[in-house]
This record gives sequence, C-alpha cells and structure tokens, in this order.
Amino acid sequence: MSAKIRVVLVETSHPGNIGAVARAMKNMGLDGERASLYLVTPRRFPHEDATVRASGAIDLLDGAAVCETLDEALVGTTLVFGASARTRSLPWPIHPPRECAAKIALEPDGSEVALVFGRERSGLTNEELERCNTLLHIPTNPEFSSLNLGAAVQVVAYELLMARGEVHKEAGNVERDSPLASADDIERLFGHFEKTLKDIDFLDPENPRHMMRRLRRLFNRVELEQVEINILRGILTAVDKKVK
Amino acid sequence: MSAKIRVVLVETSHPGNIGAVARAMKNMGLDGERASLYLVTPRRFPHEDATVRASGAIDLLDGAAVCETLDEALVGTTLVFGASARTRSLPWPIHPPRECAAKIALEPDGSEVALVFGRERSGLTNEELERCNTLLHIPTNPEFSSLNLGAAVQVVAYELLMARGEVHKEAGNVERDSPLASADDIERLFGHFEKTLKDIDFLDPENPRHMMRRLRRLFNRVELEQVEINILRGILTAVDKKVK
Repeated sequence: MSAKIRVVLVETSHPGNIGAVARAMKNMGLDGERASLYLVTPRRFPHEDATVRASGAIDLLDGAAVCETLDEALVGTTLVFGASARTRSLPWPIHPPRECAAKIALEPDGSEVALVFGRERSGLTNEELERCNTLLHIPTNPEFSSLNLGAAVQVVAYELLMARGEVHKEAGNVERDSPLASADDIERLFGHFEKTLKDIDFLDPENPRHMMRRLRRLFNRVELEQVEINILRGILTAVDKKVK
Repeated sequence: MSAKIRVVLVETSHPGNIGAVARAMKNMGLDGERASLYLVTPRRFPHEDATVRASGAIDLLDGAAVCETLDEALVGTTLVFGASARTRSLPWPIHPPRECAAKIALEPDGSEVALVFGRERSGLTNEELERCNTLLHIPTNPEFSSLNLGAAVQVVAYELLMARGEVHKEAGNVERDSPLASADDIERLFGHFEKTLKDIDFLDPENPRHMMRRLRRLFNRVELEQVEINILRGILTAVDKKVK
C-alpha cells in the first residue's frame, strides 16, 4: 500500500484540467483508498467541463476537498512535493518524478504525501514552493517546457504506479526514529522560529523574509521527524524564557 | 540522436486529441529533426480544436503527414511499436513503455521507428497490430484502463526523453548556494550549540550527550553548506548576547 497520495491543485483556472487530472489519477490507480484530490480555490468547480474531461473518474471529483488555502490542503501530510518548471534563484533540492516516486514508495503505510501543482500559467509562487520539502521537476524540452496540468499529473502518477510495482520486490524501508512531522507542525515551527529570532534581534523586522527562506530551505531539506520538531520547539522555548 | 520517431495516429476522431499529442511530443522534445506526426485518415484535420490543444506545437501539426493507410504511414520505418490496451488472444510480445524506450534508444542514427496509436474508443484492430514488431502496453488501473490519447503519447514520449539520458545533466542534483561545510566547521558548530544550550538551561549539564546526539543526527543528515553554518552560528551568537 505505502503512503496515501494527496494531489493538490492550486488555483486551477480551467475546470477541464481538473477533470483531466482526475482521469489521469484514476487511470494510474490513484483513487479509492490510495489517493484523493484537493483543490485550493479553483476558479470554477464543480463544472461541466471537469465532469466531461474526467471521463468517468467522477468519484475523484465528487470526493475532492475544496480548500481556501494551501495550508489547509496540507494539514496532516508529511512529505510535500511541489511541481516546479523553473530553475530558481534560490537553490532547493530538485528531483525528477522517478526519484520522487521511489521515495514515496518507501513511505510507511498510513502516512500522507502531498503532490502540489500550481496555476496553469504561472505555477506555484515562491511562498508556496517554500512549503514543500522537495521540488519535483518533470524533464522537458527546454524550448517548450510548459506542460499541461493533466499531462504533468499523468507523468507523475505513471511513475508512482511503476514504483509501486517495483517496491514490493525491494521492500527497503527508511529507518526512522519517529514518524515524520506533519506539514502543519513544520509551519508552526517556522512561525515560532521567526518570532524568537526577532526577539533576539537576529532577524531584521523590516525584512525577515530572506533569512526565513534560508532556514526553510535548510529544515525542509532534512525532512524533520516529530521528535526533532519537539526538540527544536523546546530550544526556542528555552530561549524565549531567557529573553523575558 | 538515435532513431527518428514517427508518432502514427490511426483514425483519430477528435481533432483536439491530435493537438494534445502534438503538445505532448514537443514538450518531451519529440519535434524538429527528432520526430514527426503521421495521421492515418483522421476524422477532421486540420481543425481549430487541434490548433488550440497544441498550445504552440504548431510546427508538428503543420508538418504532419496525412496518410490514406497505415501501410503508407509506415513506409521507411524499421521498428514498429503498436499501443495496445487489451490483453489479446493472439500471443504477441508485449512491453511496457520503459522497455520500448530503452530499445529505441539503442537504434542506430538515421533509422526510423514508428509508434502507432489507435482510435479513441477501439484502439488498433488485430490486423493493424499484426503490422507491429512489438506491442506497447502502458500499465493502468485494470478497472479504469482507457487512457486518453494525449496521455498515452505523453507517457511514451516521457520515457523516450528519459531514455535519451538527457535528463541526468539537469535533474537529481541539489544546486548549492555555497560549498558544503567542512567537518571541522560542523564540529565547531556542535561545540557552540552545546555551550549555548547549557547556558539557556536546555541541556542537562550532567547528561548532555543524548540530546546532542539527536541534534548531530539532524544536522548531519542535512549536509550543511558553509553559508548555513554561518547562519546557525549567527543565531547562537545572538542568543549568547541576550543571555548575558
């Protein structure tokens, strides 16, 4: 079984694309107990175009969770993958779908993994990408790199299907002390970090963003476990007490 | 370079699907000298829907060869792969896209390889499949196996791109801001950590080992860069000042 997959679409403009994603998911076996669809402020949903393009994958559309924010869509997930077409100024670990799928296939049963796909024209914002542990990049023709949303999900879902087939032979497991922290726990850690760093005059209150982005990059990369979040929060709390 | 790819679509009903195929091909670098599109008696072509769904891959549509018969479309090709959704009574070698792509990547320069995709509803006829050297089968959810034509070509074109190996330069590598920190820098960081954590009464002075071991595990896992060491040391120094 491995992890449950949450395909998160952020601000999709064309409902037809939501339908195409649902079809791609179900074609690749990402339905039922195995996966679900989360929609962050879709322009139009439900919509006839989504139903038509889903071509029978109606269960995924009917079961889709419509959320107000990306944060809301990520509550309870452990690993978060963000699809990114562009090379960014800020370096971030970036992986092709096959590697991401291999990693996801090793996640323990019962965990939830999010795959986040951005807007048709502009993808995910830098802020949204900073919520992700890993950037997922689908290799493309550099001169014609803008993938249709359905096509992007198709490729990733296909790799997940292929990886599920192969994982059973290997049966490797990530050794962990404790379960991975959830995305919302990590967000709370960053909130705490930012407050404490301001209190000790380490962050420029006018421009905390740059430094916080670096810390996000560091701590997202490491895939924090719950126990580690508790330790880091404990350290911050100890600092808070001394500063008072 | 390897072989030139000919994507052959047989009796496509919906011109939009021809456009989606063109887009998928060009997205995956199957354009220009590398590939072309052959259409066997398409229901409607050229057509506005094809142009719209091609989303800029107009060169492939403009250069498409429209043929009267499959035979005509296959003239000059060496290997012929036929996409097949169904398990057939007729036993025939059947291969997943990854294997087909690996095989195609080994074809000599200047040879031409055909990938034949059938009708939206009914696929290829047995007669047409018998024209193929190899049946290509994309793994799917057995309960929802009918892939959209664009999605099928997307998956196969993606595997061809991966097999060409152009991917390795691009993906899978963490781009670094700054060089990795040295082992002695990291040791100094842990020394500083231990001192500061004692000062803020977070570490039990009697038994600091257990907690420090957990922090080592965390920060060793992340492969710290020099810049990140500087940031972490900066935070510790800011805490030190406040504690004084």
